Amino acid sequence: MTGAEALIRTLLAGAVDTCFTNPGTSEIHVVAALDRIGEMRCVPGLFEGVVTAAADGYARMAEKPACTLLHLGPGFANGIANLHNARRAHVPMVNIIGQHAIPHHRHDTPLDGDIESIARPYSRWLRTSRCASTAGRDAAEAVTASRAAGGQIATLIVPADVSWSEGASIAPLFPPPEAEMPGREMVERAAAMLRSGLRTAILLSGNALYGKGLEAAGHVAAATGAKLFAPYPFTRLQCGAGLPAVERVHYILEQAKQQLGEFRQLILVGAQAPVAYFAYPGKDSTLTPAECEILTLANADQNCAGVMEALTALLPGTRQLVEETPGRPALPDGDITLTGLASAIGALLPENAIVVDESMTSGRGIMAAARTAPPHDWLGNTGGSIGIAMPLAVGAAVASPDRRVLCLSADGSGMYTLQALWTMAREGLKITTVIFANRAYAVLKREFSYLGAGDPGQLASSLFDIGCPDLDWVQLARGLGVPAVRATSLGEFTQALRGGFESGGPTLIEVPL
Amino acid sequence: MTGAEALIRTLLAGAVDTCFTNPGTSEIHVVAALDRIGEMRCVPGLFEGVVTAAADGYARMAEKPACTLLHLGPGFANGIANLHNARRAHVPMVNIIGQHAIPHHRHDTPLDGDIESIARPYSRWLRTSRCASTAGRDAAEAVTASRAAGGQIATLIVPADVSWSEGASIAPLFPPPEAEMPGREMVERAAAMLRSGLRTAILLSGNALYGKGLEAAGHVAAATGAKLFAPYPFTRLQCGAGLPAVERVHYILEQAKQQLGEFRQLILVGAQAPVAYFAYPGKDSTLTPAECEILTLANADQNCAGVMEALTALLPGTRQLVEETPGRPALPDGDITLTGLASAIGALLPENAIVVDESMTSGRGIMAAARTAPPHDWLGNTGGSIGIAMPLAVGAAVASPDRRVLCLSADGSGMYTLQALWTMAREGLKITTVIFANRAYAVLKREFSYLGAGDPGQLASSLFDIGCPDLDWVQLARGLGVPAVRATSLGEFTQALRGGFESGGPTLIEVPL
Repeated sequence: MTGAEALIRTLLAGAVDTCFTNPGTSEIHVVAALDRIGEMRCVPGLFEGVVTAAADGYARMAEKPACTLLHLGPGFANGIANLHNARRAHVPMVNIIGQHAIPHHRHDTPLDGDIESIARPYSRWLRTSRCASTAGRDAAEAVTASRAAGGQIATLIVPADVSWSEGASIAPLFPPPEAEMPGREMVERAAAMLRSGLRTAILLSGNALYGKGLEAAGHVAAATGAKLFAPYPFTRLQCGAGLPAVERVHYILEQAKQQLGEFRQLILVGAQAPVAYFAYPGKDSTLTPAECEILTLANADQNCAGVMEALTALLPGTRQLVEETPGRPALPDGDITLTGLASAIGALLPENAIVVDESMTSGRGIMAAARTAPPHDWLGNTGGSIGIAMPLAVGAAVASPDRRVLCLSADGSGMYTLQALWTMAREGLKITTVIFANRAYAVLKREFSYLGAGDPGQLASSLFDIGCPDLDWVQLARGLGVPAVRATSLGEFTQALRGGFESGGPTLIEVPL
Repeated sequence: MTGAEALIRTLLAGAVDTCFTNPGTSEIHVVAALDRIGEMRCVPGLFEGVVTAAADGYARMAEKPACTLLHLGPGFANGIANLHNARRAHVPMVNIIGQHAIPHHRHDTPLDGDIESIARPYSRWLRTSRCASTAGRDAAEAVTASRAAGGQIATLIVPADVSWSEGASIAPLFPPPEAEMPGREMVERAAAMLRSGLRTAILLSGNALYGKGLEAAGHVAAATGAKLFAPYPFTRLQCGAGLPAVERVHYILEQAKQQLGEFRQLILVGAQAPVAYFAYPGKDSTLTPAECEILTLANADQNCAGVMEALTALLPGTRQLVEETPGRPALPDGDITLTGLASAIGALLPENAIVVDESMTSGRGIMAAARTAPPHDWLGNTGGSIGIAMPLAVGAAVASPDRRVLCLSADGSGMYTLQALWTMAREGLKITTVIFANRAYAVLKREFSYLGAGDPGQLASSLFDIGCPDLDWVQLARGLGVPAVRATSLGEFTQALRGGFESGGPTLIEVPL
């Protein structure tokens, strides 16, 4: 058995059965092994930023790792920006990066480079395979590592001669360690805070934002009057009619400070203490009041859902608060407005949909408008590196073939990884992408004066302007094989959105703003 | 004066007057300084892979650095693949990367990350500015460093509070050290080898491949019978009627071995000893015969043109060999063939054109066909990271507004950085892009069996196939603001190529193969 075969068979034995990839010459023997074995679903991307975000989206929904297969340092480098986001998302992922054959290194050939240095900051586990006989074991350890601490990134660099050499074997897999529970006294301390009568917020992350974790959080909130929050950059958040209400911390510093200003206690469950996204001259980055006591009940590596369940047991008499859910928004018509777009989405979102949201300045009202839609999952940009939405949607759709995916993307962000549209078309994924085409990096226009730089002059304005020429998303999508329309009224938008939700494959709607 | 103003004014004082950029919030104060000062030409890209390759293309033609302005770790990471190529090209470049304000770091906010670790492998000079008062000096040192050793990458990380704080000043610039000359005895040893009568090859790189360096190399070849070569991955090569003939080392291992098999001596001028791009099982990577004596006359950091001129002085009686230049190819017609496409380009290439070549498997005959065209410059992919051609063309065109640029791109490579087309349109650059649409990663199909992996099966074939759905480059280009046509015969191709060369802005020709 070659090293490549042992690698793939060990991954499969570890239930890693989906590979997002853009391979090159140094990965040919891994591709040959995939070819021979035939049990791994391989989803190609035309650019590695698509590959890594797709693996992230897959992991968020499947709750298990996919692997990526990437071409040397440059192939990995192209995937870094979305790995940065994946690292912040705390998802499990196994990256396989090809490398030149070991004896070839001394020649310092054109594609050679220091892969470990650029992979290390994005990998909680990192190794270069040294020979075929250990390739299986390396893969097994990578899988185990990726599933530790609730999910993390494991990166295995595989030289070409390790792949092509014989003498390898499948390695036994060790079960991943269960995510650790915080100590009993921590849970008791949190319970005491919640019983104190002081105004208390719980900032949730990880698996406390969906499923059993969210259910437990809802019980705690109902029993104690605590308010539930999600960080602005959340990984996955279950929303919709009948589910516990979770408020997202605002992006804008003053709004977030106001939102959190009433709380005297904050309990962190897998989340960091809330701070401003960026620093501003003369402004404090902390979002909570100085007198707010902050308790880290669980860190991001710990069992967030488990700790919320443990907390419910300490808060007897808890009951689910059944909130009266108002009806869904009415279908809007007339001219395009951001409120109207949000209402249309709130009115039409199908049950069990997955919403991938990188709508930036244009989409801030959508989550609230969808609050009364049937339960659905919301996936966000966790690291702030733009260009995540369309490939994240690819991965989520691959993991969830029975669910509809609504992908909301700003035009500037979308341009980073528009190649994802081709993968959607190739795989026939049921993704409806909405492009909010305001033809600007609108957030930067606002930040300019907010940062005390005055009003943007001609040059600054031109750098924030991505019209001139206008991007034509309908042609771009069609050029990548995805049917597309431009919606110039709310009527056209609702019609296109309905069509997208009923389609057997991907569609795109450009909304000029 | 703010740190950002001192930074920009110092760059301008160092003749760095062109900035390729995609800024974000942490670079707002640098943008504000650019805005106020108004002397720096700023060229935006919709993705940082465009930005870094454009700075590379600019430097290859202008022979001085441009700067880039990039957004934090993820913005830099998106530029790495083409920085990998730029590092191999030995071009001068100054990267300015924004960073969070220093006090903001302790919060580990979403966009935070370890920029130095990922920048180090691609930067010969690297620094993080620590306060506004040293920002000018940091910029001055970055400019000097970028111009040392014939050109290298200098990276300066600038925290937001360094940018916005007062108390900065413009720093004096030290002249960059002249690229070092090899010792006299080295030049004499090379001269002795050239006089020996043994069959000798000279492998040229850097500025020995154009201008005075190439002229000197031509004298040496004519006087001694030595044969001139360029590495397969060259930076810039001047070609055309009346210029010394330089043969490119072949990509394919067996062809390169045959090409170099007759030589008993090899003199390296800025180039590395030729080796195979990739390793193959059971095959030696060295391309020269075992008995070939190899002399490194100059390394990549040394003055390649200067050493060739010094060599001519030691080889009296040198004269320029005037080769009889055959006429240009006839204009082809009929069905599309690779030979026909090459002939059309050879027939129509305008004088002083710049050809940017990432045509991969489709374009291997074009350089030979253009051999009899009027003198022109050829820019290649130096590091093998695909997706360089279109943005490299952007930079070359910005540096050379009076010259025509012909950009040759494979479809798979082009998809990596197609956002460059928008910058071409925005800046009205006279670039004619030809997309060789074979709808495959064709090189991988060949490498598969060449690597001993047999014939690609269904899965491998599907991963090398980028049709299904076909990419429609005409729609993609139009979606990005570039007029485009599809050429389905050689007649249509020559007509479109002529039209492109006469156009006042960019055009694109898709050639389905």
